[in-house]
Amino acid sequence: MPGPPTDLEWLGRRARAASRQVARAGRAAKDAALLAGADILSHRAEEVLSANAADLDAARDEGAAQTVVDRLRLDRGRIESMAAGLRQVASLDDPVGEIVDGWVRPNGLHIRRVRVPLGVVAVIYENRPNVTSDAAGLCLKAGNAAFLRGSSGALRSNQAITACLREGVAKAGLPEDAVILVEDTSREAALAFMQLRDSIDCLIPRGGPSLIETIRTHATVPYVIDGDGNCHVYVDAAADLEMALSILVNAKTQRPGVCNAAESLVVHADVAGEFLPRAARALEGVELVGDARSQALEPSIGPAQPDDFSREFLDLKLSVAVVDDLDAAIDHIAVHGSGHSEAIVTTDLTAAERFTSEVDAAAVLVNASTRFVDGEEFGFGAEIGISTQKLHARGPMGLRQLTTVKYIVSGEGQIRS
Amino acid sequence: MPGPPTDLEWLGRRARAASRQVARAGRAAKDAALLAGADILSHRAEEVLSANAADLDAARDEGAAQTVVDRLRLDRGRIESMAAGLRQVASLDDPVGEIVDGWVRPNGLHIRRVRVPLGVVAVIYENRPNVTSDAAGLCLKAGNAAFLRGSSGALRSNQAITACLREGVAKAGLPEDAVILVEDTSREAALAFMQLRDSIDCLIPRGGPSLIETIRTHATVPYVIDGDGNCHVYVDAAADLEMALSILVNAKTQRPGVCNAAESLVVHADVAGEFLPRAARALEGVELVGDARSQALEPSIGPAQPDDFSREFLDLKLSVAVVDDLDAAIDHIAVHGSGHSEAIVTTDLTAAERFTSEVDAAAVLVNASTRFVDGEEFGFGAEIGISTQKLHARGPMGLRQLTTVKYIVSGEGQIRS
Repeated sequence: MPGPPTDLEWLGRRARAASRQVARAGRAAKDAALLAGADILSHRAEEVLSANAADLDAARDEGAAQTVVDRLRLDRGRIESMAAGLRQVASLDDPVGEIVDGWVRPNGLHIRRVRVPLGVVAVIYENRPNVTSDAAGLCLKAGNAAFLRGSSGALRSNQAITACLREGVAKAGLPEDAVILVEDTSREAALAFMQLRDSIDCLIPRGGPSLIETIRTHATVPYVIDGDGNCHVYVDAAADLEMALSILVNAKTQRPGVCNAAESLVVHADVAGEFLPRAARALEGVELVGDARSQALEPSIGPAQPDDFSREFLDLKLSVAVVDDLDAAIDHIAVHGSGHSEAIVTTDLTAAERFTSEVDAAAVLVNASTRFVDGEEFGFGAEIGISTQKLHARGPMGLRQLTTVKYIVSGEGQIRS
Repeated sequence: MPGPPTDLEWLGRRARAASRQVARAGRAAKDAALLAGADILSHRAEEVLSANAADLDAARDEGAAQTVVDRLRLDRGRIESMAAGLRQVASLDDPVGEIVDGWVRPNGLHIRRVRVPLGVVAVIYENRPNVTSDAAGLCLKAGNAAFLRGSSGALRSNQAITACLREGVAKAGLPEDAVILVEDTSREAALAFMQLRDSIDCLIPRGGPSLIETIRTHATVPYVIDGDGNCHVYVDAAADLEMALSILVNAKTQRPGVCNAAESLVVHADVAGEFLPRAARALEGVELVGDARSQALEPSIGPAQPDDFSREFLDLKLSVAVVDDLDAAIDHIAVHGSGHSEAIVTTDLTAAERFTSEVDAAAVLVNASTRFVDGEEFGFGAEIGISTQKLHARGPMGLRQLTTVKYIVSGEGQIRS
């Protein structure tokens, strides 16, 4: 006999019940909820900021690192960005109801595959409170209930933001429980959350490697991993070296702390002697660590530790390897890559085609910076993450990736013989 | 420090290595492998049958149930069906390389989303040895390595079939390890198999509820569940009752042991008094169990046990419920359904539209038998199962569902500003 439901299970049931109503809501109601939530967030900015101040005080008292405090901090501008994000999502096309494809069978059955909401989308995330608003907005627009579990350090901020969003949802005539924040931020509750199979249709983690590993080991609900990006730029023998420099500098330094930044440079031996010294100058301020061949060609490259080629530095640091040919480059990426975004710089059509066909990653780029692998840059209008797994969603996830499909089969009494 | 790889891990590495070659193979080589495998299976039918005879002897010695023995048994006809199945898969279009969509961004980047193989597809299955050939054929055609784990009772049969397929693959110039059978059929090996995260891109279980539950609880690799079908036929107030009878009888009795057979009849109260006695006559030989209202209207309906409405009988047994309106029917299905296939019989457009929009299942049917929810009947040419989950694949899974996508981004030196 199962015992009485826990508090978390009750929350899950409420999210499930709300999800059925949100799934049936038309675009107008969903957009109204998002716009009302945005307005309420703006109007109540002071409330949100004072909740955030309490979280910040606690973080400082606990001696949290400055980067943690920075991620946690809200200000008027950040709150306005959250509201603007909700309005932007409201302006996007509704993915629900889209007919993906359809056909007629010889027996006269009409078959349509229609895009429908997933149901309850759970998001488990670390300190940034803006995820509360961003994730809830995308989930709602795609017709889902948002079941959110942020970190303990951001609890007061997340509560204040959630209160605004729930009020917006209610103003639009939808159930408040379309946005639920889990307030028990213990580790036990996190583990129980990722095992709420009756309530959660899809779990999306937003956080670092230890969160991802916990999900992979303990989650029993379906999930989509927004994983590491150990992204490579491969400079081919036939590369335009000016272009390669520009792409490399952009991919490494334009925003080093994000998953689509480059972490590793792989250079064809034919051009390494010319390219590496130029790259080292162009990447001034970036720590370079490399294999023996790269070090022999450019003295500013330090020795790479054994695991440096598999690390996501998320910092101004780059690993460097010299390879004899395209096959060796593809093999290097197969061994060390994380399946996120991999770029080749080349003018050689065959090399470009082999690279795009043989490198196994969510995105492969030819003569472009890895930094473009992103929902906004792909034109999705918004993104909830970048999937590095192969099932369901791969690469930047927009609204469509927060839906599933349903077959609708229409007949006139057909039976199977 | 991780220890040396286990035998199973070695097998996984071999499958992974082979998968890279199969992924690059063109349609001609993959089809040649399937056709050669089919021919070898036919030529070596005696070998396969004698391996199967040994499995059958062992099953009888262990006192296996007759249904188990029936599922295990091969004969010339079944082997020819397996070979024909491989030839049929060879005749299907290759899903790999299909451009799912593509567009150009304002900055000139060309983005294409291209269908690519998953990599290593693992299949864990129960007694039927034909799954070895069917699953391997579909995996190979979609460019994947097939990593198979059948049951201990069918090990000799599966080994014999796998040997034929591996020889066929080798004849086509592809690596034999594109088809690998795990020969350790212990429960420990099964659990380790479903946790081989480095080697398995997607796991598909083919088996009963206890296998599914084991996967849900213990698997750490990504999986797609081919789950239960507790399928309903709802006879609306506005149904053509002749059509409803024909659909009900077909859905329940045409092949009661499969997942898309109906397990439950839900009838609108306005027509239940007329429909239930006619249904009981038409379903002679089917055991009917129902709620109090249905029993009051038709004496041959016995009392339903509390869990009968949530059970997949897979037998000549049907649960029956009378409801007051469409909302109650939709609620009944939401509570008891398994998200597989749900049918409404009605002439009322509004009822049909509400049912198809509000019932949450892989397939919803209007005026057609649930038995049509099947890869062959949908026109996919073949199927590896019917997914009842919402991520990645939902409903019948054909070749496309054994693939993933990759973004290919082509530029002329674009960098992000």
